[in-house]
Amino acid sequence: MTEQQPALSKQQIIQNFEKSRLDSEALCDPLEIEDYGLQAIAETSPAKWHIAHTSWFYETFILRPYSQSYIPFDDSYEHLFNSYYNTVGQPFLRPKRGLLSRPTVNQIFNYRQHITEKVLNLLDNTHHPEYSTILERVTLGIQHEKQHQELFLTDLKYNFFQNPLLPAYQPIETKPSEKQSQSWVSQDEGLVDIGFNETGFCFDNELPCHKVYLEKYDIAKHPVSNEAYLSFVSDRAYKNPLLWLSDGWTWINQNKVQHPLYWLSNKEGWNEFTLSGLQPLDLNAPVCHLNYFEADAFARWAGYRLPTEFEWEHYARKHKNQLVESMSKNLQPIATSSGALFNQIWQWTQSNYTQYPGFKPAAGAIGEYNGKFMCNQFVLRGGSCFSPENHIRISYRNFFYPADRWQMSGIRLAK
Amino acid sequence: MTEQQPALSKQQIIQNFEKSRLDSEALCDPLEIEDYGLQAIAETSPAKWHIAHTSWFYETFILRPYSQSYIPFDDSYEHLFNSYYNTVGQPFLRPKRGLLSRPTVNQIFNYRQHITEKVLNLLDNTHHPEYSTILERVTLGIQHEKQHQELFLTDLKYNFFQNPLLPAYQPIETKPSEKQSQSWVSQDEGLVDIGFNETGFCFDNELPCHKVYLEKYDIAKHPVSNEAYLSFVSDRAYKNPLLWLSDGWTWINQNKVQHPLYWLSNKEGWNEFTLSGLQPLDLNAPVCHLNYFEADAFARWAGYRLPTEFEWEHYARKHKNQLVESMSKNLQPIATSSGALFNQIWQWTQSNYTQYPGFKPAAGAIGEYNGKFMCNQFVLRGGSCFSPENHIRISYRNFFYPADRWQMSGIRLAK
Amino acid sequence: MTEQQPALSKQQIIQNFEKSRLDSEALCDPLEIEDYGLQAIAETSPAKWHIAHTSWFYETFILRPYSQSYIPFDDSYEHLFNSYYNTVGQPFLRPKRGLLSRPTVNQIFNYRQHITEKVLNLLDNTHHPEYSTILERVTLGIQHEKQHQELFLTDLKYNFFQNPLLPAYQPIETKPSEKQSQSWVSQDEGLVDIGFNETGFCFDNELPCHKVYLEKYDIAKHPVSNEAYLSFVSDRAYKNPLLWLSDGWTWINQNKVQHPLYWLSNKEGWNEFTLSGLQPLDLNAPVCHLNYFEADAFARWAGYRLPTEFEWEHYARKHKNQLVESMSKNLQPIATSSGALFNQIWQWTQSNYTQYPGFKPAAGAIGEYNGKFMCNQFVLRGGSCFSPENHIRISYRNFFYPADRWQMSGIRLAK
Amino acid sequence: MTEQQPALSKQQIIQNFEKSRLDSEALCDPLEIEDYGLQAIAETSPAKWHIAHTSWFYETFILRPYSQSYIPFDDSYEHLFNSYYNTVGQPFLRPKRGLLSRPTVNQIFNYRQHITEKVLNLLDNTHHPEYSTILERVTLGIQHEKQHQELFLTDLKYNFFQNPLLPAYQPIETKPSEKQSQSWVSQDEGLVDIGFNETGFCFDNELPCHKVYLEKYDIAKHPVSNEAYLSFVSDRAYKNPLLWLSDGWTWINQNKVQHPLYWLSNKEGWNEFTLSGLQPLDLNAPVCHLNYFEADAFARWAGYRLPTEFEWEHYARKHKNQLVESMSKNLQPIATSSGALFNQIWQWTQSNYTQYPGFKPAAGAIGEYNGKFMCNQFVLRGGSCFSPENHIRISYRNFFYPADRWQMSGIRLAK
Repeated sequence: MTEQQPALSKQQIIQNFEKSRLDSEALCDPLEIEDYGLQAIAETSPAKWHIAHTSWFYETFILRPYSQSYIPFDDSYEHLFNSYYNTVGQPFLRPKRGLLSRPTVNQIFNYRQHITEKVLNLLDNTHHPEYSTILERVTLGIQHEKQHQELFLTDLKYNFFQNPLLPAYQPIETKPSEKQSQSWVSQDEGLVDIGFNETGFCFDNELPCHKVYLEKYDIAKHPVSNEAYLSFVSDRAYKNPLLWLSDGWTWINQNKVQHPLYWLSNKEGWNEFTLSGLQPLDLNAPVCHLNYFEADAFARWAGYRLPTEFEWEHYARKHKNQLVESMSKNLQPIATSSGALFNQIWQWTQSNYTQYPGFKPAAGAIGEYNGKFMCNQFVLRGGSCFSPENHIRISYRNFFYPADRWQMSGIRLAK
Repeated sequence: MTEQQPALSKQQIIQNFEKSRLDSEALCDPLEIEDYGLQAIAETSPAKWHIAHTSWFYETFILRPYSQSYIPFDDSYEHLFNSYYNTVGQPFLRPKRGLLSRPTVNQIFNYRQHITEKVLNLLDNTHHPEYSTILERVTLGIQHEKQHQELFLTDLKYNFFQNPLLPAYQPIETKPSEKQSQSWVSQDEGLVDIGFNETGFCFDNELPCHKVYLEKYDIAKHPVSNEAYLSFVSDRAYKNPLLWLSDGWTWINQNKVQHPLYWLSNKEGWNEFTLSGLQPLDLNAPVCHLNYFEADAFARWAGYRLPTEFEWEHYARKHKNQLVESMSKNLQPIATSSGALFNQIWQWTQSNYTQYPGFKPAAGAIGEYNGKFMCNQFVLRGGSCFSPENHIRISYRNFFYPADRWQMSGIRLAK
Repeated sequence: MTEQQPALSKQQIIQNFEKSRLDSEALCDPLEIEDYGLQAIAETSPAKWHIAHTSWFYETFILRPYSQSYIPFDDSYEHLFNSYYNTVGQPFLRPKRGLLSRPTVNQIFNYRQHITEKVLNLLDNTHHPEYSTILERVTLGIQHEKQHQELFLTDLKYNFFQNPLLPAYQPIETKPSEKQSQSWVSQDEGLVDIGFNETGFCFDNELPCHKVYLEKYDIAKHPVSNEAYLSFVSDRAYKNPLLWLSDGWTWINQNKVQHPLYWLSNKEGWNEFTLSGLQPLDLNAPVCHLNYFEADAFARWAGYRLPTEFEWEHYARKHKNQLVESMSKNLQPIATSSGALFNQIWQWTQSNYTQYPGFKPAAGAIGEYNGKFMCNQFVLRGGSCFSPENHIRISYRNFFYPADRWQMSGIRLAK
Repeated sequence: MTEQQPALSKQQIIQNFEKSRLDSEALCDPLEIEDYGLQAIAETSPAKWHIAHTSWFYETFILRPYSQSYIPFDDSYEHLFNSYYNTVGQPFLRPKRGLLSRPTVNQIFNYRQHITEKVLNLLDNTHHPEYSTILERVTLGIQHEKQHQELFLTDLKYNFFQNPLLPAYQPIETKPSEKQSQSWVSQDEGLVDIGFNETGFCFDNELPCHKVYLEKYDIAKHPVSNEAYLSFVSDRAYKNPLLWLSDGWTWINQNKVQHPLYWLSNKEGWNEFTLSGLQPLDLNAPVCHLNYFEADAFARWAGYRLPTEFEWEHYARKHKNQLVESMSKNLQPIATSSGALFNQIWQWTQSNYTQYPGFKPAAGAIGEYNGKFMCNQFVLRGGSCFSPENHIRISYRNFFYPADRWQMSGIRLAK
């Protein structure tokens, strides 16, 4: 949300902008028109809505305020594609996004094209008196769009899963992951710096960089595998209240939960629904699509705990090279949770999502971006195989409610 | 459900079949692909689902049992497009019909075409040992499809209404209705025949024809107009518990109801959402889209009551010519509730939907068609401007729950 | 609600009044103070509330309007103990009746005593200009109180059942019922008189007496026994959707129902919770505490149907002597459903609760007594072992929602 | 939960035990029998249940495991009065505690008396091989009972509030509070010790004592007053989404909230429901019965923020004398929120309730006491005028869900 230093040149920003616009559109390639409107629950927005909203963002926060000659593409879109910015007016009801058959997909792509062009025109006008603000906001817009690229995939996965046909978004071949032995890295106690302290972009919730005192801790080198989690399931863990947070036990009983979200068993064993359709469960791959309750219960069952977000960040900084390398491989969204990357899944931490000391939300409507969600959510760190290239960073704080399971969320243990 | 006499020739049945198939497809002409999947509430099925289910019906009840060479188009469809026939297996969850982006619209039309052809082939085979049963079931299939043609429109209207753009399905010009003076027809007491007693098709719930004793009654010549209903609204009727059934008052308070479903007011007055989009309220047209609670409360407020279904049927028989004439004008679905036809709206009766003495549901799965809904629903009589040609008849019993408002339902008073 | 003829002398009415007041109080004898406030669900009012409300009824409809010198016992009671009369002001919220720890039980009995005395004083004043209206309303008040005596017991039974201790209201010895063979009585078709046509009191919903045409029918001499119903349960009827109304099947699945409300099984077999505590299931006794869905499904399973309320009434009139005899034995509420009386349980009919032709609700607030409930309820006929002496009659129409199970409701079959 | 050092002599512990037992009983003095069973929502347990459960705790965790000769008072109580200890068996359903009219109040007091005597007998047996464990558990039992003393009052207040009569628990005279000027105390940054580090008892969630790095901060000397909060209300804050957390705004809209829980306005102004009945709003008293959403929104509106629990504790340690003095005045529960004490209300912090680094829950069933609630709750610090004497301490962590309003919860600002 806050660009700290003019880390990128104007030309680089334009290139990133164009690439991020094209990337979103490429995500649509495998879709049928009928797929664009699916919304199974309030949280999983339709593909069409993501495509429109990421254009709305530029229209609302850049074109309307800074482009004098700009004529809105369609007045009704301001309401229809507002996600949650009350400053901009009352947003259209989130659970009803799937009911917007009009504007059509075609109209949305026209809208999108229109916005892309107008933003590029504005970026050409380097004499604009607010040019630096425009660059800042385009940078934010790019990051915003990248966040929606990941949501595009996680939402679509959930929406497809409601269909007994279990459609495959991208039918690709996957090969089983390699086994990784459990091992730990030890860290000493001491005062450490937490938060963004580099050149370039970060969100407001990563600031300010501040000191945190950490006790000695060990953290696992690899995330928990499907195989390990299967032992937990087989140990009847979903029937044992002593393993669960009180709210988690309530959640299990209300929803009759017995295994991770996309696991399906048949007489031949466990399978997992992926964006490549139903696949045999890859035992060596990281377990994924767990909620906080499941992550926490697994850690308790295993005799360990989840790391704090500060432990995670401190550890990640000290192993940056390894992380950067793994990130560089993470070039494009893929359809299955298989693979062996360091960075395949988001990792639940035991830290609640709250403000850093001295936190200042951005001024105006953009101030609604992060701060107002600092309640009842837990921080996830890392990034997933659905995360776009160059999006994630060590200080990045993802956050979801403890019952949420449709994200690419797994476990890294600590002790 | 039950064909009484071989009233129609084989050739007529084939013609009716072909026409009803084309009629459903013609209803789709104004739709965008995106519109086919809309389902705002469990009750309002997607257009695509209606198109598929009316083919499923022939596949399940005719082709599978009677066509030896028939190979199902797609095995998964038996589950996906089963509405509520438990005999045939567990139906796919009704509230999730809108989440079936696959099969695509195109695939559904292929399925539909396939079924039409196979049924026509079967009808060619006049030497089939079950040929008369096949003719009976095709006749039922035609009636079934016509019921879904009306639902196609009422469901679409409701689903479009959720979109702030208020899309128009069929933008046509309408002219205001003519005023009709309130007048009454008196009927003497006596034993009358109720139920179907003619040649041709009827559903099982219209049988057997039986005797009912009626007291003397008066019934209104014309349905209640929007103007009359507006007086009721203006009299703060929605705030007065004494006008309402106890369950109706609960419904008002839980849903904060203040006017009929599709009425919208702005500073210039009342408008009504129609399949031609938003239109000024046509004061002389029959008030429409009321539920039973509203119909009953209006009657109480006006000092009258709703007729029983027996009073309605008895009256209709005595004025058959007038009715038949009005039906003949009712040639095609139209997009607005305007007009002056006798027969524009379904009319709530005070009769609960229950079996006639000696009622026998059809054997097998088709026995689930009507009987299992005989609980907590009220009978509506008449027919609407959305009802297909040659579908309705005097003994026809439509039925909905007292809180349902999305049908073309209005009021004819009695005293 | 409507007294037709001055059937009883003033002195008889006073005696009945005094007796009904004492009867209600006698029902309280076995209670602990703590029991008076129990309310497990909105429908099952606290004992204390029944005791207060039956006094409120006299205060509101007799003392306030007709006793000039009457000073209300406590102004707040008008609101607190109003059941559903909107004419009298907004009633206190029904689901919260159990939260009124104050006024205390003692205060309520003082209130009750006060009302009894003031009504008796008013009845002494035979020169009162509205004396005949007062007698009419006292007669209604007596009937009203008797209705609440039965509800007192059914509500208490349900409320006690929530306690794992399964408290016994009245621990009495019961002996097993005698077996009754299934047998049928045939009735011819024809026009019959339905509704109250005698001297004395009846409610407005029993009027006017009118003609109904009945087809030939057979009706069972005895209600369905626990043994017969146990066969239905053992036949896995609660797992078979084909036996159930569509709404009933939904009800079963939402509530995981597997047997009648008060049946509990242990390794020695079935027991039934009664007002005498847990008892072995009395196989020859009538099955009780079924809702309409269960009664209807049993009848379908057995190959029969439920009678209409007109069939029931017609049959009962023709066997009046038998009925009267059985009623005379029905002297006091008893704690178990055992016994062999004709009249032990209310019997679900397939008739919806609706108005008779020419129905006129009483004027004023008392008009809210019956009419506004004529929606989505079914008529029960007969009377139960919880019904007070001299309360029930052949034309009496009891009514409950199809999902309601906590009344003394069972099955008499027809065909 | 964990006694660190044998800080108190055996004799002191016995005295504290006896006093805490009597204190709970004294809280019952103003109650009518009818009041003991009230439970308006799942969270607000009946008075009777608190009285029983605080005895159950000793029976379950001391008498059953350590008193060889002990015969349970009543076997059913183990289930009925278990709050949430799954280790001990499935607890009786929390929302149904109000339905346990039996055992009666009298029986519960007999149970209570029995437990008190048996514990005292056990404490006499100083040669018991587990004597030190018994002392530890009695100490825990005393603290547990004190927690329930506060809940007894907050629950009763909420339950009484449902009654339109607004009963007064303890009708006492209160005098208006004195105005306190807003002023701030500044604290420097640095590493501080957090957690219990003294002699005596603390709960497991206060351990281990550990280091936390704090930035420079200012904290308010006095809690926010009713007057200040009234300005917030008058500024239409409950209508302004920009002031609220996203979840808070949802909460407001779902519950139509417009002011604090116990505020009621009439034409003469604002009143507040207290345990002394309805009282004029004491403008200078601390605002109370706010939930986290309200506390957070007020802070945002005022331009400040809530403190973290670490800031609060650090500040409190540095001003211990002032705090201790205020605690010593806090001798008995009082019925109104008036007064001027430092310590009248619990104060929401922005810290989520989570484990301290190195946290170890107690072994066995007692380990369920705290840890399993570490999700979605916020820490409150301080103590209230309902908190028992000698119960609270600087490191004490109270915790509730952000929507909870029925506790004595208010605001201390930070910046």
